[in-house]
Amino acid sequence: MQITSTKINFEKLFHPDSLAFIGASPVPGKWGFIIFANILRGGFQGKIYPVNPGYANLFGMPCYPSISAVREKVELAVITVPAKNVPPVIDECIAKGVINAIIITSDFSETGSEGALLEQKIVEKSLSAGMTIVGPNTMGVFNAYGKLNILMPPIKTESGYVSIVSQSGNVGTQIMSECLKHGIGISKLISSGNEAMIKCEDYISYLIKDKTTRIIVMYIESLKAGRRFIEICRDLKAAKPIIIYKSGKTEGGKSAAASHTGAMAGSTEIYKSVFKQYGIIEAESTEEIIDLIGGFMSFPIPRGNRVGIITIGGGWGVITADECENHDLKLPDLSVDVYNKLDKLLPRYWSKRNPVDMVAVLSMEIYPKIIEAVVSWDGVDSVISLGGPSPAGFFQYDDMADKSGIKKEQVALISEKIHEQINERKKIVSEFMKKYDKPILHVEMSTAEDIRQNMKKYNYTTFMSPERAVRVLKKMVDFSKARDRMNKSNYSECVSKPRF
Amino acid sequence: MQITSTKINFEKLFHPDSLAFIGASPVPGKWGFIIFANILRGGFQGKIYPVNPGYANLFGMPCYPSISAVREKVELAVITVPAKNVPPVIDECIAKGVINAIIITSDFSETGSEGALLEQKIVEKSLSAGMTIVGPNTMGVFNAYGKLNILMPPIKTESGYVSIVSQSGNVGTQIMSECLKHGIGISKLISSGNEAMIKCEDYISYLIKDKTTRIIVMYIESLKAGRRFIEICRDLKAAKPIIIYKSGKTEGGKSAAASHTGAMAGSTEIYKSVFKQYGIIEAESTEEIIDLIGGFMSFPIPRGNRVGIITIGGGWGVITADECENHDLKLPDLSVDVYNKLDKLLPRYWSKRNPVDMVAVLSMEIYPKIIEAVVSWDGVDSVISLGGPSPAGFFQYDDMADKSGIKKEQVALISEKIHEQINERKKIVSEFMKKYDKPILHVEMSTAEDIRQNMKKYNYTTFMSPERAVRVLKKMVDFSKARDRMNKSNYSECVSKPRF
Repeated sequence: MQITSTKINFEKLFHPDSLAFIGASPVPGKWGFIIFANILRGGFQGKIYPVNPGYANLFGMPCYPSISAVREKVELAVITVPAKNVPPVIDECIAKGVINAIIITSDFSETGSEGALLEQKIVEKSLSAGMTIVGPNTMGVFNAYGKLNILMPPIKTESGYVSIVSQSGNVGTQIMSECLKHGIGISKLISSGNEAMIKCEDYISYLIKDKTTRIIVMYIESLKAGRRFIEICRDLKAAKPIIIYKSGKTEGGKSAAASHTGAMAGSTEIYKSVFKQYGIIEAESTEEIIDLIGGFMSFPIPRGNRVGIITIGGGWGVITADECENHDLKLPDLSVDVYNKLDKLLPRYWSKRNPVDMVAVLSMEIYPKIIEAVVSWDGVDSVISLGGPSPAGFFQYDDMADKSGIKKEQVALISEKIHEQINERKKIVSEFMKKYDKPILHVEMSTAEDIRQNMKKYNYTTFMSPERAVRVLKKMVDFSKARDRMNKSNYSECVSKPRF
Repeated sequence: MQITSTKINFEKLFHPDSLAFIGASPVPGKWGFIIFANILRGGFQGKIYPVNPGYANLFGMPCYPSISAVREKVELAVITVPAKNVPPVIDECIAKGVINAIIITSDFSETGSEGALLEQKIVEKSLSAGMTIVGPNTMGVFNAYGKLNILMPPIKTESGYVSIVSQSGNVGTQIMSECLKHGIGISKLISSGNEAMIKCEDYISYLIKDKTTRIIVMYIESLKAGRRFIEICRDLKAAKPIIIYKSGKTEGGKSAAASHTGAMAGSTEIYKSVFKQYGIIEAESTEEIIDLIGGFMSFPIPRGNRVGIITIGGGWGVITADECENHDLKLPDLSVDVYNKLDKLLPRYWSKRNPVDMVAVLSMEIYPKIIEAVVSWDGVDSVISLGGPSPAGFFQYDDMADKSGIKKEQVALISEKIHEQINERKKIVSEFMKKYDKPILHVEMSTAEDIRQNMKKYNYTTFMSPERAVRVLKKMVDFSKARDRMNKSNYSECVSKPRF
């Protein structure tokens, strides 16, 4: 019951001209309502045929008693009817000449042998008829470039270059939401469900060639075609970053996975060694997934593991130095030249070493000079910058205007000027990255909205803690090494590039 | 050059009747402006005397050429003049009978032998005169219950029960900000600076007796009076949670710490074993600090390590099961009774095991019953709940009103009803914690504002990832064990209690 990736018509999955929704419903709270509403909201441009024998009209359009009743061609079917009703629906889809069918419905192989039999039956029928099945037990499919939003959660999407393949719809859509929260757009999302026919590996082989995908993100519990995955990664030679969160690492996790997607989770050690060998980036926590996406979308790939740290206060410098050492990132001693440059710029009680402690200097004039002194230094491959002068905060309360004896209008003027300077600072950091082709990972006590704005305006992400920045940097360094090792000759057009 | 904690007049440090600010300035951007402004903004009720020979008036009040020129008594002095000018200022403070002096100024022992000599001179003088020094090189002191805000950053504070002692002003004020972002109020903050005279250990011995402090949080690079710290913890018997982030763990971090506060960071192993022995809670990342504060402020202390997991989707269940196993938290098999209860509530394709996968059930009727079935079960000591029905999102876009054929007013009504139900769900979780005296750690894709609202309204914190919840639970279990071991007889009035 295998299907080869080349036989799957992914173009018609992601860009169908028409779709039928079997199980469409006017009842809020039902998946046939929620997902159908999301398709409409997503602005799909092709033809839409709601199917439900109970209604003549739905959402202001004609509703069909069955897909057979639709006179026009139907390329994609979306199915939400209960499991026991799926086989006859599949028969009708095949008869109708449907190319791909997305089965949202649960209660198949993930619940036991009865469901597994049902699933097998559907797959056999579809395979012999040449119809492809996504799922079952999937949360759906999304493609920004086809205005196709067949998803459960009502996420307001933005188009971009990150594609997600997830063996958990829940985790997949949450990664998507996090990306959007951070100002990072999405190309495609596939919740692969039980993978009765199309597997993670199939989606990956499509996405590595997809021009609108720069970064591939995967949540996996187990790979059913592990050997094929290895071949794909070997051939890719790290030309496009693949970020993976692998769960089911412990016995408890494996048992949970078994009842989730019916998967056997396999040996953690094997996965880890494959990831390492082929430059696959492993996210070690759910939050690290978004951090890594931000990093690979934002920064030039570092050429080595030497780091310069610049900090507004000493404590963060100490924390970051600890983390760097724990992650095999080196903090070289300042060269005489860099030392002298900094010594001229900073108060006499500065740290005089790497980490460079700016000892709470608030001057916007000096800040860019300090950053440039460090990033331009050929002794480092990257910079971590912790906080920075942001005196805007000192003027945020109008009440201070009178108390300080400064007039309100003056406070407003100062505030405006400082905001301009902060914007200027961000622009300068972005320009330094371009100029010196090195990442500058900036850490700041930010809100998600700040991070989003920064990404959208200056094209680089901000980190909420020093530890999170260090872990991303470490993994970018590892990726760089693996890519070098695997030879750059195959570096194709569709690779991830710094976005500057 | 030691001072015993009992000789320090902490009452007059945190509740002075009068303060002089030596170095007050009308120039925005100067610390003499910023900190002075924060004191005014903080609403300090005692007498304030700005001191600066250059001005006759400052911030609308008389300004004095020197502290000697103030006729009234001065209990607290705040000093921001350059290091070389500090010794004569100290002489004047002593002559004036000042009780405590906070030296904000840097460039003392942290910058080398010259600064160290200067620092020594100041301390010797003050000691022999009986005046106490906070700092130097401190970011200041805050006490919500004295309306005393002598801090660099312009944080809008709220009073509460968390007190922070930090060897980095920067890290300390950031912990404070994070608390406030999460809806957790502050009692006191002390940036201990170079600790020339008063040390971390002194502040701690005050705070463990302080009735408005339920949780003590420390950022340390090294403890100068380590033995005393051990004695304090031994006597405390974990009656009040002490959460510590210890930096300077690696050689790189130790060197950075040396140039930050002039401290020798000491052996990590010794610290770790002391923490473990005395039930001190070690935060292993900066973000874990706030997670642990939230946990200890929110939840009943778990009695053991058995966890029930309830999840809206399978993937998160797998991730959380992995994390629990990695942290020695046990997931017991469901009892027949609990199994039967759940089987009646959930669709037939539910996970039928712990983690309990609610398979995306959106019903608000069923949700509380599921939670209660698990939390009431005597086979678990705590519950981790991942996501939950939140169909509010399905109605957040007005545009759907027309597209779905449902009228706008109806959408508004449904939306309102669902929000009510979500509030009800949170209230119920809070009540279950009280009723069953077990923690329910809830994980949700939240914004900081959601978390803040939840804490303020329902008195429990929410976690942004399953991993973060698991780590907090693990450390609460460890604390519980250590406390039991150390005997509960000394459990005093001022201990941390569940807030329900």
